[in-house]
Formats: sequence, structure tokens, C-alpha cells
Amino acid sequence: MPALDPQPASAPHPARPAPVLSRASRPLTFDVLAVDESGAQVATAIAGEAPLTLYVDTCEIVTLMTLGQHPEALAIGYLRNQGLIAALGEIAQVTVDWEVNAVAVTTCAGIAGLSERLAKRTVTTGCGQGTVFGDMMESLGKISLPVDVQLSQTQLYAVNELIRQHETIYKAAGAVHGCALFRLRPKVEMLYFVEDVGRHNAVDAIAGYMWLDGHAGQDKLFYTTGRLTSEMVIKAAQMGMPFLVSRSGLTQMGYEIARQVGITMLGRAVNKHYLLFTGAGRFRRA
Amino acid sequence: MPALDPQPASAPHPARPAPVLSRASRPLTFDVLAVDESGAQVATAIAGEAPLTLYVDTCEIVTLMTLGQHPEALAIGYLRNQGLIAALGEIAQVTVDWEVNAVAVTTCAGIAGLSERLAKRTVTTGCGQGTVFGDMMESLGKISLPVDVQLSQTQLYAVNELIRQHETIYKAAGAVHGCALFRLRPKVEMLYFVEDVGRHNAVDAIAGYMWLDGHAGQDKLFYTTGRLTSEMVIKAAQMGMPFLVSRSGLTQMGYEIARQVGITMLGRAVNKHYLLFTGAGRFRRA
Repeated sequence: MPALDPQPASAPHPARPAPVLSRASRPLTFDVLAVDESGAQVATAIAGEAPLTLYVDTCEIVTLMTLGQHPEALAIGYLRNQGLIAALGEIAQVTVDWEVNAVAVTTCAGIAGLSERLAKRTVTTGCGQGTVFGDMMESLGKISLPVDVQLSQTQLYAVNELIRQHETIYKAAGAVHGCALFRLRPKVEMLYFVEDVGRHNAVDAIAGYMWLDGHAGQDKLFYTTGRLTSEMVIKAAQMGMPFLVSRSGLTQMGYEIARQVGITMLGRAVNKHYLLFTGAGRFRRA
Repeated sequence: MPALDPQPASAPHPARPAPVLSRASRPLTFDVLAVDESGAQVATAIAGEAPLTLYVDTCEIVTLMTLGQHPEALAIGYLRNQGLIAALGEIAQVTVDWEVNAVAVTTCAGIAGLSERLAKRTVTTGCGQGTVFGDMMESLGKISLPVDVQLSQTQLYAVNELIRQHETIYKAAGAVHGCALFRLRPKVEMLYFVEDVGRHNAVDAIAGYMWLDGHAGQDKLFYTTGRLTSEMVIKAAQMGMPFLVSRSGLTQMGYEIARQVGITMLGRAVNKHYLLFTGAGRFRRA
């Protein structure tokens, strides 16, 4: 995605902390031979997938199965969304080595109480990184999303159209989920589009880029091709997003958590169709 | 799914061990109000989703986010597929209590080395229960799938047709994945169809029912609506299935593991179309 390739971490905001990053994307698709119903051999593109074990200061945290397009941002966003790192400035270096399928995050001063916080894990609905640590669920009560931002139907349709036009690995090979971050003003613009075999990896990579590039969630729209399950809503809310949009459906807990945190959530958003489920106060149909 | 409702565990094989089970399915869909693009209020069915914390002999194992249709079979199949329980006879009782979102599995004699085996977890691609324990990856070398079974194109089309006709929560509410187990002889027959918000939950529930009803995998076909990722292929192979079919695509590691274990894997299987990727020796197009 050349037009969307994230800027170097330090470019627009020289005062922001800039960890030293490797830039170690893997090949994204592979051709394999299949045989179709007519007996013909068909070269078929399939999505890349590899294990990536995350170490923080030599402590092994987790092994993620990933497409491997944005491994450094994925590692940073994973630690951010799991609440294990509170600010980008805590990270000194992120180094990916596909020879050993590892990403090593070096912190400036360690993480206090890391082993206790790793002790309790919840395996959740989401594709991919379906693990939450400790008190993620309890942290929802502390979330306060901005109320003075608006999304118009015209802006939503612009989001749908940008998604429709975007070239994706999904179109080439299937088997991946996509997430995108949009700004709405001065015009609707796609800031990132990330795909992964696990959609939670895609969310986390965007969270990593938001830190690296200094983007806050508070006036942004988060888009996912996947379902609006509990963990997807929790992650969007934790990233401070007032708007969460999907072309898919939702689950009971996704709906209940969206109501609880007051996020403006739209599903089945394709072309000029959508269903507005929660947070109607921020949406204008006119 | 009344026609497919699994038999009581002890009915057809009185000699098999029959744990005492609660029968605690949750409501599967809920209606919520949404607003569509015309401004109209639309009653919309959404899939149920609730946390279910699994305890074995009072030791907390994991919290699964689940539709809750088959919680007892899910708990049994989870323990089976994670390699934590080696035989159904080790389980004395499975009791689900939705008041506290818990399922308690009581074993006959405890699980040796449980805490060590819980120590290493891999978060993987799959929806839902994306956790594998310890040496799951290493266990692949020990798998030997039957070579003397055959799947014909006609049988595959019968599978596709039975899937197409089946009434599903997906059709009503979206946001769930489905898995099914088929026998091929004397005729193609759907033994189970299980849906869940996490597709790994659906796989595990089928693994649980296979134990409860005494079905071996060795002459069966496993069908999933979801992608053929690494963990899906590993689980099918561990359940002894020679045939793995999906209407979706596959990933690189799914493909590589399928080749390694020699499973007959078909993707994009819809109506009279499919792509045969691996294990061609068991497939007859004529």
C-alpha cells in the first residue's frame, strides 16, 4: 500500500519518542498449485502466515500467527492494547528477525509486574490474537469517548467507497481480515489500511502506527472487515475511537459493550447501506 | 438443529464412559433495534455471545467467548484438542452454570502436570480459542492419517449441498462460524453442525461430541465455513480426519501443515466448484 505507507516515526513530530525499528515485512502472498473441478491445475495465490514470538526484554510474551506485513507496529500495538506498555516512550527498540520468527522489544526501564499481568489470560472471540490480559474487561468503566464529534451519512459513504476501491491482499488471496483508520476532517481520508490473517493483529498494528505517528483516536473512525465482537469493540474503545464501522454483523457482547461505552457503532456498512446500532447522538443522516 | 441433535452420550454404545452432563444451552440470537440508511428502525437479529470460564477440578484453565449452544461438548472438546485430557473416561462430570458463566469439569483422577502444561501458550490465527498449549506444533510428526479412504467429487458435491440447505444461525444473524462433521458411507450424511462466535469453539464442540458419541475421525470429512489456517489444519489432523473442506481460502501455514500431515484439503468448495490443494491421492474426480 504505497500511498498509505506510514511515515517514518520521527518525521512530522520531532519531539515524539522514536524507537529504533527494523523494517522486516515478509512476502505477503504465495502461489500454490491446486486442481479445480474440471481437473485443471490452477495457480492460486494464498496469504502468507508465520509464527512471530514476542519477547520483551528477553521475557517471552506470546506467539502470534501473522501475515507479517507490519511486525514492528504489530508488536508495539499488541503491548499497547494489552495494557502492558503505557506510552511509546517506554520502548527503546523493536527488532524483527524472521530467521528465528521473533520480535524483540527492548524497553527503556523494564515493565513492572510483568509476570503477574501475564498470569491471567482470556481467550476471546476474535480472530488471531484472541487473548486479553488481566483487567481489560474491568477497564471499560474508565473509558470516556468524545461526545462533540459527528459523523454524517455522506462521510460514511465516502468511507465505504474508499474501502471498496482499495487494493487488498483479500482480493488477491482471501483468508485475511482488514482494518483501517480514517480521519474525517478536513476531508474523509484513509490513514492506514492493514490486513492480517488474524484481525486482532490488524487492529494492533494500527494501534502501533497511531503511537508511532502521533495520531489520537478521538476524532477518528475505525473500520474493520470483520465482525463486531466483544474484543473488537473493547479495543476500539480503548484506542479512544468514537466511531466503529464494519461491513459485517455483530454479537451480543459486542452490542452490549458498545452501548456501555457509548461508541457510535455501525454494521453492514457497504456502499449506501448500513445499520446504526449504538451511539446515535454522533450520527447525522442528513 | 433438531434432526442433528446429538444423541445422549450413553445411548448407542453402553460400554463407553458417560460423564454426567448438564444441558445448558443459552439463547442463540437476540433482537436489537437498529436504524438503517432510510432512517427506519429495523429489528435485527444478532448472535449470542457470553464468556464461559473453564475450570478443571477447581483449577481455572481459560475463558472462552462463546455462543453457548453446546457448552458441555465445547469444554470436553477443548480439553481434548489441547491435549489436556487423553480419553473421555478421565471425565466424571461437566456442569455449566450461566449464572456465573462457568463450566466445571470434574475428572476421575486429576490431570498430571496441569500447571506446567498451561505455562506455554501460543496465540494463533483462528477465531475464538486461538490458544495452543505446549507441544501441539511438535506433535504433528506423530500424526498418521488413513490412506485407504476415498472421497469422490460426487460425495463432495453432496456435502456442499447439505451445507447449503442447512438452516443456520449465520443466515439469521451472521457473526458466527460453522463447522460440520460428515460420514461418507453408506451415504453422505451430516452428523453434526455446530456454530459459534469463535470457529475454534465450533471445532472443539464437535471434538467433544465425537468422544461422547464414539465417532472416530478416520473415515470422516470435516467441513468449516472459515479459513484453513494453521490451527484449523492442526486440529483436523489431530482429530484423525483424512478430509478437510472449506468454502473459504487458506493461508501459507495451513497449506504447509496440510502437506506435511498429508491431509486431503479442499478450499473454495461451493456448489460444484472447489480447489483441491493437498492429499490428491484420496480424491477421485470421476
